[in-house]
Amino acid sequence: MRILIKGGKVLLREEEQFKVTRGDVIVKDKLIDKIILEDGAKTKNNVEHFDKVIDASDTLVMPGLINAHTHAYMSIFRNYADDLEFFDWLNSVEVVEDKMTGEDCYWTSLLSIIEMIKTGTTCFVDMCMKSSIDGVKNGPKSVVSGAVNDSGMRAFIGRGLVDIVGEEGAKRRLNEFLEDMKLNVDNERINYILAPHAPYSCSHEYLGEISKVASENNMLATIHVAESETEVKNIKTEFGVTPVKYVDDTRLFDNPVVIAHAVNLTDKDVKILKEKNVSVAINPRSNMKLGNGFANVQKLLDAGINICLGTDGSGSNNTQNMFQEMQFASLVYKGSAKRAKCMDAEGVLEAATINGAKALKMEGHLGELKEGALADIVILDLNVPEFVPQNDLVSALCYSANGSEVKTVLIDGEVVMEDRIILTLDEKEIYEKCNGIVNRLGMSIE
Amino acid sequence: MRILIKGGKVLLREEEQFKVTRGDVIVKDKLIDKIILEDGAKTKNNVEHFDKVIDASDTLVMPGLINAHTHAYMSIFRNYADDLEFFDWLNSVEVVEDKMTGEDCYWTSLLSIIEMIKTGTTCFVDMCMKSSIDGVKNGPKSVVSGAVNDSGMRAFIGRGLVDIVGEEGAKRRLNEFLEDMKLNVDNERINYILAPHAPYSCSHEYLGEISKVASENNMLATIHVAESETEVKNIKTEFGVTPVKYVDDTRLFDNPVVIAHAVNLTDKDVKILKEKNVSVAINPRSNMKLGNGFANVQKLLDAGINICLGTDGSGSNNTQNMFQEMQFASLVYKGSAKRAKCMDAEGVLEAATINGAKALKMEGHLGELKEGALADIVILDLNVPEFVPQNDLVSALCYSANGSEVKTVLIDGEVVMEDRIILTLDEKEIYEKCNGIVNRLGMSIE
Repeated sequence: MRILIKGGKVLLREEEQFKVTRGDVIVKDKLIDKIILEDGAKTKNNVEHFDKVIDASDTLVMPGLINAHTHAYMSIFRNYADDLEFFDWLNSVEVVEDKMTGEDCYWTSLLSIIEMIKTGTTCFVDMCMKSSIDGVKNGPKSVVSGAVNDSGMRAFIGRGLVDIVGEEGAKRRLNEFLEDMKLNVDNERINYILAPHAPYSCSHEYLGEISKVASENNMLATIHVAESETEVKNIKTEFGVTPVKYVDDTRLFDNPVVIAHAVNLTDKDVKILKEKNVSVAINPRSNMKLGNGFANVQKLLDAGINICLGTDGSGSNNTQNMFQEMQFASLVYKGSAKRAKCMDAEGVLEAATINGAKALKMEGHLGELKEGALADIVILDLNVPEFVPQNDLVSALCYSANGSEVKTVLIDGEVVMEDRIILTLDEKEIYEKCNGIVNRLGMSIE
Repeated sequence: MRILIKGGKVLLREEEQFKVTRGDVIVKDKLIDKIILEDGAKTKNNVEHFDKVIDASDTLVMPGLINAHTHAYMSIFRNYADDLEFFDWLNSVEVVEDKMTGEDCYWTSLLSIIEMIKTGTTCFVDMCMKSSIDGVKNGPKSVVSGAVNDSGMRAFIGRGLVDIVGEEGAKRRLNEFLEDMKLNVDNERINYILAPHAPYSCSHEYLGEISKVASENNMLATIHVAESETEVKNIKTEFGVTPVKYVDDTRLFDNPVVIAHAVNLTDKDVKILKEKNVSVAINPRSNMKLGNGFANVQKLLDAGINICLGTDGSGSNNTQNMFQEMQFASLVYKGSAKRAKCMDAEGVLEAATINGAKALKMEGHLGELKEGALADIVILDLNVPEFVPQNDLVSALCYSANGSEVKTVLIDGEVVMEDRIILTLDEKEIYEKCNGIVNRLGMSIE
């Protein structure tokens, strides 16, 4: 399969900077085969040599965004338990979450995936708190990986691992996850990641065991760390250390790890994260919505830590729209630092693309348009008022875009959305299923 | 002209709360004639009695949003002078602004207006720093009011008044503005507002004179107040008072006034604003972008001050999208107060609708759907992932919408956008004109 994306403005990396140049992008099977830069008028790629030609005039062709932290199945928790502090919110959500079936998770994850594709995300890191064995027992339509498979999306899927309710359950959850991993060994879009939940929900021993599994299987891990002041206080009181130190003591950080949130860090925490090469997925909207405040991004930038960007689940966000998240990341850290230079457009766009790829050990394969990289490509309509004037598209992507400019999306070389129509899924069916689930769970529909 | 908006979910006010009910909305000429609430299936309004029927099934019918503070002509300053502190930014912008002609302002204002209509704004408060006499001298296509007239938009238009460059210029500017007002006396969509720029650019005497003009003509006024810490410090040093007290001493607040920004207020300032019944237009994105921080919205809420919402100009925002601004207002004040209950969805939606109407002395006429009110109506597509589940649309409007859900817009009873096509303007012509202006002014195009 050969696809020609013809005559667009193409967002490339050059000497570690973004650069917009007119050109053609040629996709062959799963990969970007060639990028031919030239004046649009001179483009000579003969359209007859391709299985499909996408007219990219008046568009920007850019790498798909990487959502470095979310909980896709939580889409149905938006508009629910609004305006509650972190632990009150968590308790409210858990009551309903307990009633969700594996099949519910399949449909609600698809809802998040539709939203992601429509707003330019082509890869996400997921932590699902529901059983992952459902996939093995009831088939792939009862688990997140089934939704990823059916949608054409790319993901790094983790089962949220906790051992606060006893050692036996904890072992079972880990084993279930390892079992679930066998479901999709032949699908390269589906990757797995170990996902211990948080310092306050995982014992030292459990995190140690997970570290071992990660080392033995050469796997990535992801964990919530230092999300709320309450977490920091409780860990300090019980263990005499910060949440970062607590996790570090289990040797988890000897593996490649993405920590999420990192709102409350000491200088020493930042030093540990830098030394252990830990990536930080910031989640600005979730942190504000739950009253947790703002991560000290300037401190992370100064330390040279790899900052990537996540939406978190829709229960605390309330959307999976990474362009919205980019705009928040561009602005709220300037606001909280009272410093207009904090987090410029380049930095935010890097966080949403190439830094996500670095965090996932996929540098060179994801997060940028280059020959030989995976063909995860987003095409944006430039004929919209927020993209006029066209004098700095990197600035416009961060400060002006709302995500609806995304027109066509390719993942793994496959066109999953064209002219805003999702080709892999039945949108209406998914909306109806999700409204039905919400009704059944007693969260009434207007 | 009679228009039937048939079978949508309608956002109404009931006992000072928002309420979503299924029903028909009937528009007659400029006004909402009837709202007939009933089950959609039973709607019996005979479509033959209407000049136009809008099928509103699967949509939300809501009042148009009111942008309580912007500078429409500044659309071409987005992507320009990013990441600069407030006064550095102001200086950078002014150099280019000086080269803009009246005709430039007409086209750049139209660009903002397109963006506003496409994202559900039907009325805005404008402060234009360029000459308003151009309209009288060169015709309405050289002034903001011409753009408002031609687009079908509703606005409260002010000429930014300053007297830092000498008394003669100051007098001239005020007289020009009063002259410009005569241009559009017969267009009810075009209202005028006195717009002294700021305490640091208007002398006591000048503000006193403007107060007098406001009283004599029974006019509203708007002014930037307490936007940056530098402003507060400088006014304190030179005059020994806060910016709020400085303005209050000129008696401007004896008239109905909307102050913009209000980032740095003392308790005494808040007391003055409450006593004088001053409305505050908060501008969260602009304040962050320019490193000015966050307004203390909790303090304003506690004092019972009328809070409305503005985008500010695109030079410091960078968009006119009020749904984006609502989401920021929903979240950043929770973040800065570390309090999840600060600024809930109801409060933010009120700020963007009915509180704007109150500030403009248009309560009962704008900002809500009710019989007898002006027909400024926005119809949103509910078949989008961010509006699923449909269990709390007020929450979804604030925490999930991105503005692109707006499908059809009526202003003053006229359909100005239908199925996302602007009916009153040629979008492409305006984009080309604005890119041309930016090129001519030396802000290069990619």
